[in-house]
Amino acid sequence: MSMSTLIKNALIIPMSRDGEYFYGDLLIENGKIAKIAERIETAADEIFDVDGDIVLPAFINAHTHLAMILMRNYKDDKENLQQWLAEIFPIEDKLTGEDVLRASRLGIAELIKGGCTTFSDMYFFAEETEKAVKEAGINASLGLTIFGDGEETERRYVERLPRMKEGAKDYGRICFTIAPHAIYTTDSDSYKRSKELAEKENFVVHTHLSETKKEVDDCLESTGMTPFVYLESIDALSNGNMILAHGVHLTDKELEKVREYGLSVINNPSSNMKLSSGALDVKKLLDMGINVALGTDGASSNNNLNMLEEMHVAALSASLKAETPINAYQIIKMATINGAKALHLDDRLGSIEVGKDADIIIISTKSENMNPLNNPFSAIVYSASSEDIRTVFSHGVKVLDERRLTYAEEKSIIDDVNSAWSDIIRR
Amino acid sequence: MSMSTLIKNALIIPMSRDGEYFYGDLLIENGKIAKIAERIETAADEIFDVDGDIVLPAFINAHTHLAMILMRNYKDDKENLQQWLAEIFPIEDKLTGEDVLRASRLGIAELIKGGCTTFSDMYFFAEETEKAVKEAGINASLGLTIFGDGEETERRYVERLPRMKEGAKDYGRICFTIAPHAIYTTDSDSYKRSKELAEKENFVVHTHLSETKKEVDDCLESTGMTPFVYLESIDALSNGNMILAHGVHLTDKELEKVREYGLSVINNPSSNMKLSSGALDVKKLLDMGINVALGTDGASSNNNLNMLEEMHVAALSASLKAETPINAYQIIKMATINGAKALHLDDRLGSIEVGKDADIIIISTKSENMNPLNNPFSAIVYSASSEDIRTVFSHGVKVLDERRLTYAEEKSIIDDVNSAWSDIIRR
Repeated sequence: MSMSTLIKNALIIPMSRDGEYFYGDLLIENGKIAKIAERIETAADEIFDVDGDIVLPAFINAHTHLAMILMRNYKDDKENLQQWLAEIFPIEDKLTGEDVLRASRLGIAELIKGGCTTFSDMYFFAEETEKAVKEAGINASLGLTIFGDGEETERRYVERLPRMKEGAKDYGRICFTIAPHAIYTTDSDSYKRSKELAEKENFVVHTHLSETKKEVDDCLESTGMTPFVYLESIDALSNGNMILAHGVHLTDKELEKVREYGLSVINNPSSNMKLSSGALDVKKLLDMGINVALGTDGASSNNNLNMLEEMHVAALSASLKAETPINAYQIIKMATINGAKALHLDDRLGSIEVGKDADIIIISTKSENMNPLNNPFSAIVYSASSEDIRTVFSHGVKVLDERRLTYAEEKSIIDDVNSAWSDIIRR
Repeated sequence: MSMSTLIKNALIIPMSRDGEYFYGDLLIENGKIAKIAERIETAADEIFDVDGDIVLPAFINAHTHLAMILMRNYKDDKENLQQWLAEIFPIEDKLTGEDVLRASRLGIAELIKGGCTTFSDMYFFAEETEKAVKEAGINASLGLTIFGDGEETERRYVERLPRMKEGAKDYGRICFTIAPHAIYTTDSDSYKRSKELAEKENFVVHTHLSETKKEVDDCLESTGMTPFVYLESIDALSNGNMILAHGVHLTDKELEKVREYGLSVINNPSSNMKLSSGALDVKKLLDMGINVALGTDGASSNNNLNMLEEMHVAALSASLKAETPINAYQIIKMATINGAKALHLDDRLGSIEVGKDADIIIISTKSENMNPLNNPFSAIVYSASSEDIRTVFSHGVKVLDERRLTYAEEKSIIDDVNSAWSDIIRR
């Protein structure tokens, strides 16, 4: 494994200054970005001439349920989120830690092939997903997921959190969120305890909110409040420390408060569109100054984990929802630096800057669909295909090399999941 | 070149009966589908064991402007269609036949890599695009495009049509449409003559209609009628013989008439969303019994020519627009048999049936994103990436083999377009 890599002749998009790109070289040393310049002549263990290909920060998938890859395309074409969840929950009751480990390995492989090296997960058996993250050598923010009441919340924290924190310490690239699932699956006491613990332990709270009209209507019926107002009423909104997945049906007044509280909204356009849930008005949120990041949601409702494709869908969906098109650069921000900010990882991820982790991807500009290039931001968002993501580095190490995983054998990852899935549906 | 190819162990989706798929073998002889069965033991020049990969009819791109690939990502992020066209038209005035030939070659390469072997074009220098179609060995419906008045229309037909018909005759896989551009660029006399000529020559009329709200508003202001009512008032609607690109803003009453006239609507979801034009309510049209096909529009407003990606966007956009999700199989129909019907090519294309042309694609089921497969229709529409389209046959000949074009050198196609484009913007 090289300790230093010199990338030459790249079209570098650093994502640290709006609309900036330039041609130059980039030096990676010991997993970090050591130097960026028009020309670097330093010796390096590996010199990699990319001949005008694009170098971009690796993507950050800010909301997913990784192991739900098992249920990809399963019971598809249901009428809405609730009908579909009714099919999914009984399957989830049967899952074992080993199932989640195998599924996490496949999910991580798919994420990497779509240019992503950091994901924010919300699922069960997080310690199994943690193993898969370490095997691949990437980054994760793993949710300690809560379904149920405050007591269960407390019990899960006491049981699992110390072990998970311990497991993450040496590795250094895993952090945790406390993840009460949603207002329709988790009670108010659980939300309150989640907030308290998050503030005490300096964790981010990760929850679903205002995903569907039905969620809003049901909440209005049972509490007289919308989901956001309900969370506010129970003092569950954690200042600057909470990510709201979906948020499709947040009202303008609620969005003002989202901004005041410094919360991040995670847009999941494919899942929202596919389930007829609606579309987030991304342009409006960005114009208001809200940090909007991007997620694929689970592969069971997407039905893929491809962040490049998610950017494309996000751009189209945002432009449809608004009166005028969104700027492509804004979409790349959502998939990189905005995700890092949402997860409190922007000190080391989300942009190409000296001192940050070398989590970067190389997008070929040599394919039919990338020519003429004309505008590199538009090319990435609208024209590129994951096939163009030739190489992915995480912490300076190539995890994808010419579209092949470097750290594992792809076929066995896939076979293991298929055999687990055959077994699960027979249980 | 093989005269016969036997494809073994395929997951065949014939698209001739709703929701049908089965595992089996497929024999191609002399460019045609000769036999489909659970097991075929006939000798063949080539035997191709696909080990469970999906065999599907090649896609039909029912509305594009192929050579606009030159302007890919050029002047992107304009506020609307009209502003963007104002940037594009001056460039188009400078184009030569050689530019269009080079651009057509690149466009065809990109189409093939997205699994498409038939396209319906509307652009200038159609005889140059015709050359590129013949070089690749695929199918096209080429529009004799009209901007202007009836006299220009007449002149273009007299000048060009005989030559184009002659050029297509021996090849046998090119047909023509008469393509008055739009009501805001072409006059009523031109539309009327187009209809007469189309009926006389048995051609399809191909036009843009009701793409944007502005088009509708402007038409209402100048004629007191919507674009559809205007075309009906001048007797320009050709029974069963006309394809309407976009149609986003057609009213319910107009859609009833679209069905009565037997017209096809070509959905271009990426372009419509990207330019904030709106989204076609595909579920409604299909429920009404209207034939809806799928197109990418030009690569300048999409900004790619990837029909697999267009299916994905079409599905998401249709489910967002409707109250409940669209069925994935309906989307595959739009991209195959419905396109063939719209272009009057369903006697030989659009489905896998004995006697039809062997225009088929092989989609790998071996990638991370295609596992678990669970539902092959959903997997194609939501999970697949063009990288999974390993092999493409047109008329029984492999035009794409393991992601490489067989008939041309990709780099020179790309280089030729880039040098043309550098020259064009300096003219």
